[in-house]
Amino acid sequence: SEPNDRPADPTESQAQQDIGRYGLPLTGAETRYYANHTLSYDQVRRIPRWVAEHLSNTKLRGEANRKHCRFRPDPTVPQAFTAHNDDYLGSGWSRGHMAPAGDNKASTQSMTETFYLSNIVPQNYENNAGFWNRLEMYCRDLTKRFEDVWVVSGPLVLPEVGDDGKKTASYQLIGKDDVAVPTHLFKVILARRTPSSDTLALGAFVVPNHPIGFDHSLAEYGVSLSDLERMSGLSFFPEVDPTLTLGNLCELDSCHLMDFKEFTLYITGRKVGGARSSEKLEKTMAELKEMGIVPDDYLLKLYQRKKEELRQKETPEGKMGN
Amino acid sequence: SEPNDRPADPTESQAQQDIGRYGLPLTGAETRYYANHTLSYDQVRRIPRWVAEHLSNTKLRGEANRKHCRFRPDPTVPQAFTAHNDDYLGSGWSRGHMAPAGDNKASTQSMTETFYLSNIVPQNYENNAGFWNRLEMYCRDLTKRFEDVWVVSGPLVLPEVGDDGKKTASYQLIGKDDVAVPTHLFKVILARRTPSSDTLALGAFVVPNHPIGFDHSLAEYGVSLSDLERMSGLSFFPEVDPTLTLGNLCELDSCHLMDFKEFTLYITGRKVGGARSSEKLEKTMAELKEMGIVPDDYLLKLYQRKKEELRQKETPEGKMGN
Ligand SMILES: [Mg+2]
Ligand SMILES: [Mg+2]
Repeated sequence: SEPNDRPADPTESQAQQDIGRYGLPLTGAETRYYANHTLSYDQVRRIPRWVAEHLSNTKLRGEANRKHCRFRPDPTVPQAFTAHNDDYLGSGWSRGHMAPAGDNKASTQSMTETFYLSNIVPQNYENNAGFWNRLEMYCRDLTKRFEDVWVVSGPLVLPEVGDDGKKTASYQLIGKDDVAVPTHLFKVILARRTPSSDTLALGAFVVPNHPIGFDHSLAEYGVSLSDLERMSGLSFFPEVDPTLTLGNLCELDSCHLMDFKEFTLYITGRKVGGARSSEKLEKTMAELKEMGIVPDDYLLKLYQRKKEELRQKETPEGKMGN
Repeated sequence: SEPNDRPADPTESQAQQDIGRYGLPLTGAETRYYANHTLSYDQVRRIPRWVAEHLSNTKLRGEANRKHCRFRPDPTVPQAFTAHNDDYLGSGWSRGHMAPAGDNKASTQSMTETFYLSNIVPQNYENNAGFWNRLEMYCRDLTKRFEDVWVVSGPLVLPEVGDDGKKTASYQLIGKDDVAVPTHLFKVILARRTPSSDTLALGAFVVPNHPIGFDHSLAEYGVSLSDLERMSGLSFFPEVDPTLTLGNLCELDSCHLMDFKEFTLYITGRKVGGARSSEKLEKTMAELKEMGIVPDDYLLKLYQRKKEELRQKETPEGKMGN
């Protein structure tokens, strides 16, 4: 889909034949295809330029578990240009997925591929576990109301204006591979109710790569697609039919991220589901109570089920019964 | 020549068909072909990533004149991603050619294309007119000793290590289009004595984007090709036959740039050739004398010829004779 990639016959000119005699420089920006995501890699920054996905309600179902996945260099990226785990470890930055592991429960293979470092950028820990995580959950939640959801995510380095009026772009590099730490992350979301819809919902967001609390809404980070295109140097969804109307996602849908209570109930639910002892289980529920949050029906049912499961395991009869 | 650009049939997977339904993001990094140079453009920095040329003694001959050329946006670069002259004017940075105009005297068309802003980066004025200019002259001079010379030029943003041990990359942005000012420029030179040579001469240089005087040699800025590949994220001359030996250009040739005297004689020669009055002509020669530089035979002949030409023009008889 990259147009003008080269003229029909670049060899037609003798000058071009001469220039390319020993090969033209490779930028490595070509599109790379994986089981459930697609990306273009930035060989000089050792992070992706963009990562594209398609989400749907059925595609999100499954039992693949990130516990069986390990971060590792993408075997298809040349050794000279790949990041390594050592670059991140002790750097103060987490390994942030662009295509989220959580969008790939349907397949161990596709989830494994999201742990390739070609899909990862240095991300603030709190941002990764918090606001960005909630944004990813919102994307998945959209599939309840839209049959098809397309998401493109990636890093940005945005400039700042100094006291002298000069614009400067600055970014940190980590590890021996000089992995670039983006100042911001972007996410473009395109959602379609049904294949026959003549309106698509579009949202483009630019999120600073630092902690963002519950006092900020997603809409605060909304930008126009053309502004994001200038910031990123990318053209998004170049093949959208001109007959389609593009509506504002935050008007056609809520752009509502989980609030503190919803998020805490969700996180508690995950802890309850993964509790390995009655003691851990009770501690998790006690912490929730301390925060003044009342468990909802879903969490209470989960808790009761887990409690029974652990009781069976922990009593001598239960152990024998296994 | 970009391998793995896409699998033979990216549509074979339903997941990939779904992801690409409205087109994948365009990076604009595709190779762009011109009459006598080839480049990949950086849409986010509004400067080239790399510019490739092939020089030979015969190709360098001609009378095309840069006086007839004007800097302007590359008509093939999307409007949202191109630089404009206004970005540069008053910025404190010159418009530095990557493929030099001076390599294109053979064709007005190809010289005109080197003035497209896709071939230009913000360059320190003194560096552009001085060290980099002398490096470009060295590349042309190589064609006297090597039948074929390949040159790849481009911008770099190199990190610095702060007092706290943190590595940071910083670059200025100029104009309303946020054109990136590179911290450094690179040039890779590959030279071949004859088509049957089994040794190629290779030099890779990284030059800071600031004034560099005559007290610095070109060899000081030499780097290994693999180091430059890591700095730039590019792979150079990927199709060099493994049977060929790559020798060090600075050992196989001189890497000698014009020294102060040679350069001043050269610049004076250009001024003499372009002098529009006897007064200007004599002033140019007087300046040379003041610098304590004795004109060589070539310059003296040029001066005598110009002096006669201007005398004819400036005397009433001469004017009448025109
Ligand atoms: Mg994450
Ligand atoms: Mg120049």
